Amino acid sequence: MTLDPSDGQLTRELDKAHVFHSWSAQGALNPMVIAGGLGSTVWDFEGNEYLDFSSQLVNTNIGHQHPAVVSAIKEQADILTTVAPAHANLTRGKAAQRILDRAGSSYDKVFFTNGGADANENAIRMARLYTGRDKVLSAYRSYHGNTGAAVVATGDWRRVPNEYSRGHVHFFGPFAYRSEFWATTPEEESARALHHLERIIQAEGASSIAAILIETIPGTAGVLVPPPGYLTGVRALADRYGIVLIFDEVMAGFGRTGGWFAFQSLAEQEGGLVEPDLITFAKGVNSGYVPAGGVIISPSISATFDESVFPGGLTYSGHPLAMAAIVGALDAMESEGIVENAARIGRDVLGPGLAALAAKHAAIGEVRGLGVFWALDLVADPETREPAPAPVVGALKAKLLSLGLLPFFADNRLHVVPPCVVTDAEAQRALALYDEAFSSL
Amino acid sequence: MTLDPSDGQLTRELDKAHVFHSWSAQGALNPMVIAGGLGSTVWDFEGNEYLDFSSQLVNTNIGHQHPAVVSAIKEQADILTTVAPAHANLTRGKAAQRILDRAGSSYDKVFFTNGGADANENAIRMARLYTGRDKVLSAYRSYHGNTGAAVVATGDWRRVPNEYSRGHVHFFGPFAYRSEFWATTPEEESARALHHLERIIQAEGASSIAAILIETIPGTAGVLVPPPGYLTGVRALADRYGIVLIFDEVMAGFGRTGGWFAFQSLAEQEGGLVEPDLITFAKGVNSGYVPAGGVIISPSISATFDESVFPGGLTYSGHPLAMAAIVGALDAMESEGIVENAARIGRDVLGPGLAALAAKHAAIGEVRGLGVFWALDLVADPETREPAPAPVVGALKAKLLSLGLLPFFADNRLHVVPPCVVTDAEAQRALALYDEAFSSL
Repeated sequence: MTLDPSDGQLTRELDKAHVFHSWSAQGALNPMVIAGGLGSTVWDFEGNEYLDFSSQLVNTNIGHQHPAVVSAIKEQADILTTVAPAHANLTRGKAAQRILDRAGSSYDKVFFTNGGADANENAIRMARLYTGRDKVLSAYRSYHGNTGAAVVATGDWRRVPNEYSRGHVHFFGPFAYRSEFWATTPEEESARALHHLERIIQAEGASSIAAILIETIPGTAGVLVPPPGYLTGVRALADRYGIVLIFDEVMAGFGRTGGWFAFQSLAEQEGGLVEPDLITFAKGVNSGYVPAGGVIISPSISATFDESVFPGGLTYSGHPLAMAAIVGALDAMESEGIVENAARIGRDVLGPGLAALAAKHAAIGEVRGLGVFWALDLVADPETREPAPAPVVGALKAKLLSLGLLPFFADNRLHVVPPCVVTDAEAQRALALYDEAFSSL
Repeated sequence: MTLDPSDGQLTRELDKAHVFHSWSAQGALNPMVIAGGLGSTVWDFEGNEYLDFSSQLVNTNIGHQHPAVVSAIKEQADILTTVAPAHANLTRGKAAQRILDRAGSSYDKVFFTNGGADANENAIRMARLYTGRDKVLSAYRSYHGNTGAAVVATGDWRRVPNEYSRGHVHFFGPFAYRSEFWATTPEEESARALHHLERIIQAEGASSIAAILIETIPGTAGVLVPPPGYLTGVRALADRYGIVLIFDEVMAGFGRTGGWFAFQSLAEQEGGLVEPDLITFAKGVNSGYVPAGGVIISPSISATFDESVFPGGLTYSGHPLAMAAIVGALDAMESEGIVENAARIGRDVLGPGLAALAAKHAAIGEVRGLGVFWALDLVADPETREPAPAPVVGALKAKLLSLGLLPFFADNRLHVVPPCVVTDAEAQRALALYDEAFSSL
C-alpha cells in the first residue's frame, strides 16, 4: 500500500469533524493517525514508524497484520461473514474447541460476545442465576467494561459517573507497593488482603453474594501481579461461602503473561492451578482483528441452563468472521510458539532490562509484571512513593513518541505491553528508548 | 466452496459439546446448521437451500455475501484490521461521514460501538450527563440490548430476570390492534398513548427524567408502526419537559423500512421530519458482516463533551474492519438502489401479498409494516384477537422450514423480514410458501 500524506490530513479532518472518541473530552483531542502496521510496528501516512509497545489497547498479542489471521479472515469472508446466534456454524464450533483446549478440562462451554464488557455482563448474569444471589464483589483497582453492570463492577474512576446499577460492592485487592493494609511483605499483603475480603463477605452477608469478579492480574490498574497465596485464598473463600469465582482475563489472557491464561502462569507461585468457575476473555483471543469476547463456563454452571432459559444474548454471538480470526490466531500462536516467546522475552529481556532501568532512574518506583505485561510505577519521590505528577508523565509520553515508540500510559504508570511476537532486538531497542526518555526528564 | 455433509455432522457435534447459545435452554437445542449464503438464500452442508426471510436476526439488509462488502472487508484486512479508539483512522472517518450524510444535517458526530446494546448504553449515558438527570423512560414493548442498562430499558420478558439497575421506568406505546387505551381508531390510539406518556412524565417528575428511549418502529415487539402523530407528539413532550429523545434504529435503520432511517420513512405520515436528539444503530449499517453499532449525536449533545470527559468507551470503537464493512455496505446500498428496492418490494409485492394472505387465512389477525419490515399477528380467533397458541406457531415454523423458507417468529407473530435486496420473484415465492404453510394448519 502506497502511503499518501494527503490521506493523513483527510483522516485528521474527518476525525475532528465526525468521530466521537472514548473516555475523552472531545475539544482538545489531537489523535495520532495510524495508517498501517506489521508485527510490533505501526506507521502513519507521512511514513513515520513507531514501535508499538502499547499493543493498541493491549490487544494485538499476535502483532499487527499477522498473515495467518488476515488469511483466515479473508477465507471466512468468502464463505460466510455472519450468521444468527441461534444457528450452528462450523467455525464457531472450532473456535470454542480451541479455547476450551487451552483453558483445560475444568470447562466445557463457551458463550461468545462482542468484547470484554459484555463477557463480564454475561458472566455476572450466569453467577446471579446460578446462585440465586444478587451482589457482585469486585476490586476498586479494576476495569471490567463500559456497560451497565460491567462499568459499575469497575473500580476505577470510570465507575463513578456510571453508578446506575445496584448490587455491586468493592473491596481492596493486594498491592504490596501501595498497601491498603499496612503490610510490609508480600506474604503479609496477601494474608491481610484475604482477611479484608473475608470481612467484606461477612459484613455484606455471604448469602447475598453471587460472585467475586477479579482480574487475575489487574491490568489497566497497574499490572498488579497478586502476591503468592492470594488467588488460592480467594478460591478458598469462594468455596467456603458458595460464591461463584470469575476471573476476568480480558487483558491478561491468551499469551500476555507468557501462558495461555494468567491463572496458568501463576500456578507455580500458588503451588498448583487455581481455577475460577467462569473465565471472561476478549482482546488476545484473536488480537482484536475482529471484535469478539466471551465466557468460558464450567460444567456445573453450564448445566444450570440445560433446562432453564439463559436470559442473555446478542446478534453477533459467535460471529463467523470473529470466530475465523480466533481459529487463525490461536493456531498460529501455537504453531509459532508465540506464547513461549512472550514468556522468554519477559524472563530474559524485559524483566532484567526494566529492573536495570529502575536501578538507574529514580522516577521508577517499582517494576511489576511477567511475560509482555509490565508496569513501571512512576514516582515523584522513591521514599514517599508519591505518584509522579501529570506534567512529568506527559513529558515522558511526548519524548517517547518523538523517539518513535508508541507507549501505553495509565495514571502515573508506564505500561510495557508489546505484542507477544516482539523480538529480542525490538525489546532491546525499546529499553534503550525508555532509557533515553527517562534520562531526558 | 464444496460442501461436505460430514462437516454438517461435525458442526452439530462441536456445537452441542462446546457452544453456549443466546436466550435459550441449552439442553434441548437442535440448531439449524448454516454453511453458506448468497443474497436472500442460505444453505447447509447437505445442500439444502432456504429462502432467508429472517435476515438472520434482521440484520443482513444487503443480503448474504454481497461482493462489494466482502471485497471491502478483504481490502481492509490487508491494510489494517484493528487500531485503538484513541487514534485516528481514515476508514473510521469515512464511515462516520457516510452515516452522517444519511442521517441529515441535524447531527454532527458518531460514537462507534460493537453493537446495538452498547449503542443504547452510551446514548443513555450521554443523555444522563447532558441533562444531569437519571431516569430513562422506555416502552414495555421494546428490546434495547442485553447489557446492564440496556436490558433494563428493555420492556419484554428479557428484562425481568435482569433488573439489577435503577432509574428505568416503562410505559405503554401505541398499538392499535391490541390497545392498552381502549382506543377504537389509530388517531385515538395516538392521542391516548401520548396522554399516557405525559402522565407518566408528570407522575415520575419531569426533572428526574434524562431520556425517552423508543424504537422508532418497535421491531421484535411486533413491527409496531406508530400511528400518525405519535412521533410528533413524543418529540413535543421531550421538548416541553427538557428530555433527550433517543430513537433506537438498531433494527429499523439502514434500509429496512425502505428509507435510510425509519424516522425518515415516517416523515410523510407525520407531516414533516421528526428528529430525535440521538440515534442508535447497528445491524443494517453493515448488515452485521463485522460487529458494529453506534450513536449518531446532535451538536448540542456532542458539544457537552468538548470540555468535559465522556465517561464511556470500548477497545473496538471504530474498528477499521467494521468501518470498512460500513463504507462498503452503504456505498453499495446507494449505488445499487437497495433502499429503494426495499421500499418498492414493500409497496408493490409484500404489502398487497400479505394483505391477500390475511384475507384468506383466519389465523392472520393483522398485517403491519412497510419496506421489508412486516409482522403477521397470528390469532386463535379473529374476533377476540386471542394470540395463536405456541403449538400452532411451532407447526407453522416447522412447515415453512420443510418448504425451504427460513422464517422469523417472535411470540405469536411471523415477521416477514427478508434482506432489502430481495427480488420480486423471491418475494412472490415466499408469499406462495406462506400461503401453503397457512393452508396446512
